[in-house]
Parts: sequence; structure tokens; C-alpha cells
Amino acid sequence: MEKVAIIGAGITKFGKRDESSLMDLLFEASVDAIKDSKIEPEKITSLFVANMASGVLNKCLAIASALADQLSIIPASADRIENGPASGGSAIRAGYAAIASGLTKCCLVVGGEKMTHKEGPEITSTVAMILEKFYEERYGISLPAFAALLTRLYIEQYRLPMEDITRVAVKNHKNGVKNPIAHFQKEISLDKAMNSAVISDPLRLFDCCPVSDGAAALVMVSGDLAKKYCDNPVFITGSGQATDYHAVCQRTNPLHLKAVELSAKQAFSMAKRIPHEIHVAELHDAFTILEILESEYCGFFEPGKGTNALKEGLTEINGKIPINPSGGLKARGHPWGATGVAQAYEIVKQLQGKANNQIKNASIGFTINFGGFGNNIVSHVFENELALNEKNGRNT
Amino acid sequence: MEKVAIIGAGITKFGKRDESSLMDLLFEASVDAIKDSKIEPEKITSLFVANMASGVLNKCLAIASALADQLSIIPASADRIENGPASGGSAIRAGYAAIASGLTKCCLVVGGEKMTHKEGPEITSTVAMILEKFYEERYGISLPAFAALLTRLYIEQYRLPMEDITRVAVKNHKNGVKNPIAHFQKEISLDKAMNSAVISDPLRLFDCCPVSDGAAALVMVSGDLAKKYCDNPVFITGSGQATDYHAVCQRTNPLHLKAVELSAKQAFSMAKRIPHEIHVAELHDAFTILEILESEYCGFFEPGKGTNALKEGLTEINGKIPINPSGGLKARGHPWGATGVAQAYEIVKQLQGKANNQIKNASIGFTINFGGFGNNIVSHVFENELALNEKNGRNT
Repeated sequence: MEKVAIIGAGITKFGKRDESSLMDLLFEASVDAIKDSKIEPEKITSLFVANMASGVLNKCLAIASALADQLSIIPASADRIENGPASGGSAIRAGYAAIASGLTKCCLVVGGEKMTHKEGPEITSTVAMILEKFYEERYGISLPAFAALLTRLYIEQYRLPMEDITRVAVKNHKNGVKNPIAHFQKEISLDKAMNSAVISDPLRLFDCCPVSDGAAALVMVSGDLAKKYCDNPVFITGSGQATDYHAVCQRTNPLHLKAVELSAKQAFSMAKRIPHEIHVAELHDAFTILEILESEYCGFFEPGKGTNALKEGLTEINGKIPINPSGGLKARGHPWGATGVAQAYEIVKQLQGKANNQIKNASIGFTINFGGFGNNIVSHVFENELALNEKNGRNT
Repeated sequence: MEKVAIIGAGITKFGKRDESSLMDLLFEASVDAIKDSKIEPEKITSLFVANMASGVLNKCLAIASALADQLSIIPASADRIENGPASGGSAIRAGYAAIASGLTKCCLVVGGEKMTHKEGPEITSTVAMILEKFYEERYGISLPAFAALLTRLYIEQYRLPMEDITRVAVKNHKNGVKNPIAHFQKEISLDKAMNSAVISDPLRLFDCCPVSDGAAALVMVSGDLAKKYCDNPVFITGSGQATDYHAVCQRTNPLHLKAVELSAKQAFSMAKRIPHEIHVAELHDAFTILEILESEYCGFFEPGKGTNALKEGLTEINGKIPINPSGGLKARGHPWGATGVAQAYEIVKQLQGKANNQIKNASIGFTINFGGFGNNIVSHVFENELALNEKNGRNT
């Protein structure tokens, strides 16, 4: 199988981007990534655009074809990949497959969403389109309500105070301060978070990610081209994706995120790595509880131990396994289609030693992009050359 | 590169399917394909769903995750691929890449659209979402209007009567008679077509494909598994995809469908075949002019010679290069996301000797799925074992 390397990464400012259309955001991130890669644009032969709701929110479809023209990379092939809030992870996987299959030598993967021009209720009804129709959507349940149910289950099962969960938000806001593209760049106190408005009991405002606009992009090439364009390429060494029962009520134990567990296992197995080798991770903290559960089911901590790890500082920038140094969805923001690609952007910068909250000697990174409400998860393992050489040396 | 084979193909009745939801149609075609393949469903590790407008027309997103659960193939990975009316071709390509890259051994590709529950104006405004925003959509131009402009250009340039174009509809309606899943199963006379209502001068009703509901599906496996499940697998030997300027007005000669030409060239080159080796083709006749232009720019006939070929019967069932034996988009119908997969369905049946309008000794087939208004084209070459063995014998 062909090795696949990321040689350029780009991102826009996340937040309320009133002046920009969805296409503007995708274009901006793409140009940033292409510049970063130093590749001649005409070398790009495939484009994958991750986006969840362009038809509903932006009244445009077939946006990949439009972007290929705007970027002057025609006749490159161009497709949109949609997997709800995990569209970004899926698009990276599509780019990986296109290169590893030999269909293309160089592709651009860009994810983006433009949401903030819509009122809250329209965003809520758009998100509801990913829910199961018979057991969920018709009863009016929403994603925050599901996250609240999981949170309640978790704190009752492990007899924890709610603040043990909400600490995720405090950590990620702190990380966001140094990230210039983050939607929020300010610290919050645990006290402030615990006293913010109730969204869905026991979740409060600061337990939930914001509605954001933004885009992120990656230039990916086959392994043999990596060093031609880039001194410090980052390789995608593991890719996993798994689905679970659509309706949360059909899962025996809703806290057991089986698709997280399985997609992470697939990615680690393909990369020939174990969770404890990871130096830095970007997890999908759309709600505070999700970072905790993902950190457990991807294998970093035992089930029920995620909040302790957080309290002990293990997941902070200087901890044993820093999670969401970018600020995560909580502080960086969560433009659906952008998120999976933005997670990879942060890992690439970390593994190149160029991150805002740089983890010392980070050479192996990991991402989880969470689709639906846990029913379609995409995981990736990334390694820089140092890690690869070390692994290859060890294996021979 | 891993060989990729189709071992099962399924399809629903196309037309007005009031009793079925989009998910019902996708499910029905999927089950039909899985049964046809005789593979155990749990062997399917990836699902690709081609669909253009589920968010806008059906108020559901992340439909691939939902379908994976309904089909009981979780934890298979599941993604939706959107490339306007060429979503089906793109999803086949995604399935090809997933297998050829080694990410999966067996995948299900299903395309579908549920449209007829919407009124005409809503369909028109949904199609308009794929148009270029600044030079096209804001002026209110529609796809039929573009097709009319191309038709006018063509008949003026080659000094032809309009009936030479409209004959495409007569041929395809005739082919549709024997196709039990076709939206229309009745012949039309050239006289009737030439006197039908004007849609956009010089196009009349019968120059345009209908609005249809429907779905089609394929089970694809890596080459080494093909004969384990299927006596007569069909191999995807060539895949091409190319984009062109989004705005038609920016193309030097709008009749010159460069993306058709290039994507076909890519597919033929990959398959090591030339156009004249093709025994049967399914082209994208959303409008009569498109079948003519595609038959020229894919290399079957010289530019300007497509209507003569049609008049001489070369593209009829018993002709030298039969085009659209299924009835094409004109008679089978055109549920956007389904079309590319339905084209492949017809070719698979032809190459297995099981088609309704069986072409004698067909062993090499070809498809063009036309996205946007000619700005994102997907082409595929298909071969059965006989053709492959003959080619391999010739090459050694």
C-alpha cells in the first residue's frame, strides 16, 4: 500500500465570519494549505470537500466542483463527503484511499461550514436531520439532550460531582487562549462554567461547543513525493471508521461508545501503535462528557478513569497525554464539516513543532471525529518521520 | 493495485414512489444487491451512499450511518458522497478506491433520490443549487435552458434539423419498454416528441428526462474474493473523473465537453482499452443533446457525427455501439443520486448476459455520469472475465 503524507495544512479564523460565504471559507483554507505545502496547484489531481449542510444552510450543492474551479485546479476530480459532524474525518479517509489506491498522487482535503448566519432554531433543526427518525427525532430530542443523558448516567454511575466533567471546558478554554484562530480565546473559571445557564440539565452553557463558521485544509501526497515538497511531512499511518446503532436507546450501555472503541482500535492496529504511544490527541469535545468518554474508549484511560486523569492534569499541555491543545471544539469552535480537518491541522502542526501550544517532542498524534450521536466515528493516527524511522528500526 | 470486482447489483422500480421514503428506496436497492451477490452481509465493511439533496428534499443528513444500521451491517464504515447528478459515479469511484487502497475488502455502493413528493418549482430551485452563483444562478438560468443553448448551438453549427437530436428520446423510450424498472415503458413516435410542449426552445418535453424516485446498488469486492461469491463477476478496470469551468460562459466552446473527453480518456487509459472496443454504453441523457455530445467526446464518434450515427442505427440495441439499452435517464428516469449507480447496474447485467435488452456477447461496458452542467464528469470501464482474460492473453 502506498504511504500517504500530509505536506501542507491551512486553516481560517473560526467564529462568526459574517463577511465570508461558505465558498470563501473553503477557498481561504485551501489557499493557506497549498501555500504551506509549496506544491504547484496544478499537481493537485483530486479534491475532497467535507461539509455537512451546504444544501440546507447555504443553498448550494456540488460545492466541490465549484471550489475546484475557484482554486484553478480543474480538471482535478472533486467530490463532497458528508458524514454529519464527522465529515472532515471521512474526507481525510477518502483522500487517503484515493492516494493509497493509486487513483491520485496529490489531493486537497478541505472541510468547512458556514452556520452563524442562521438563527438557533434553524441550526437545531438542521442538526436534528442526523438523528434517528422513529425513536429520536419525532420525540424532539436534541444532541444536547443526549449529551445530558450520558453525562447524568456517567456522574451517577461513578458517583462524581458535575464539576469533574465541566473541567474539560476549563482546560480547553485555557488551551484556546494561545490559538489565534480559536472562536474563543479566553480562560474561564470552573466557577463561571458551573454557574452558566442550564442548556439541558446537568449540562450548562460551557459544557457545549459553540456554533461557528470556519474551514481547514490539508494537502496530501503519496509517500514518494513527500520529501520533494516538504522538510517535515506528517504521515497518516492509521485510519479507522466504525458505525454503531443509530438510535441511542438501542445501545445496551449508552456510555460504552463502541464505535469510538472500534474505530480507534482499527487506526492503532493499522499504524502498529498502542494508545500509550500517542504524544498528543485532538478529541471531539462537542460536549464536555464526550472528551471524557472518548479518552476512555480510545484506550488512553480505563472506563471511569477519564475525569481523574483530567483532574490530575494528565490531559493538559504538559501532561502525559495532552488532549485538545488547540482548544478543541469547545474553544476553537465546531463548524461541522471543518472539525475533522481542523483536528488533523493541529496534529500536523504539533508533529512539525510549529503548534501554538507546542507539546515537546510530539511525533505521534491521534484524532477522533464523532459523527451522529456516536454512531459513526472516524479515528486517525499521524506520525512524523522521526516516529516512523524509529518504528521501522524497531521492527527490523 | 488490487483488482476490484462487482459481485452483486440491485435496483428499485424507478418512477413516482409515493409509498417509499428515501431511506426505503436505499434499503430496497441494497437488499436486492446483497441478495444478488450471495455475500454474508457481515462481510460488508464499508458503505458509500450517493445522494445529492437529502438535506434539502428529505430533511435528513448523515443518511449513510442510518442505512448501515437499517441494513444491520454496523460497524461498517459509512459515508455519503455528493457530486450533484454525478454522485453515483463518484460513489463507485470511492468504493473502488476503498478496496484498491486495502482499506476494505467488500463494500456496498448505493445511490438514490426521492424527489417526486416535491412540486416542480422546488425541484428547479434545488437543481439551481449546483449552478455557478455569479454568472448563472443569479440570472435565473436553469439546466434545461443550458441544454437548450447547447442544442441550438449544435444544430446551427452542423445545420441539422431538431429531429436529429430528438431521435435520442425515441430510441431510449423504445429501449425502456423492455426494462421493468423504467419510469416510462412505452414507445413514443418522433412526431409525438416533436410536437410535445416546449420546455426551453428548441427543447421540448420529450427532450428532457423526468423527475423520478429510485435507487440502485452494487456489492464490490477485492479481486481475490470475486470468484468466491460470484460465477460471473464484473471488474471495474477503468475510472476517470474530471472537472471543467463551473460557469458555462467561461468555456471557449460550450459544445466541447472537455471534462467528458478527459474523464473518458482517463478511464480508457487505465483500462488499457480504446472507445471502439466498447460493446455497450450507458450515457447521461438528462437532455437529448447530452447523449449526442457525450457519444462524440468520449470517442465513439467524431464531433458532429453523433446524430448521423444515431440515424444510422449504430447506437440502437443491434447497432455497433448500443447506447442506453436500459432506456437511459430519458425512459428509466433520473433520481439524481441513483443514476450513476443505475448505469453501472445495467452494464453489470449486460456483461453477465442477464439484461432486459441483452446485447449479444457484451463483455466490455462504459458509463458516463454527468455532474453540474458538464463541469464534473465520472467515467468507468467495466469488463467481464472473458474480456479480461482475452486482454491479458493479448498483452503477454
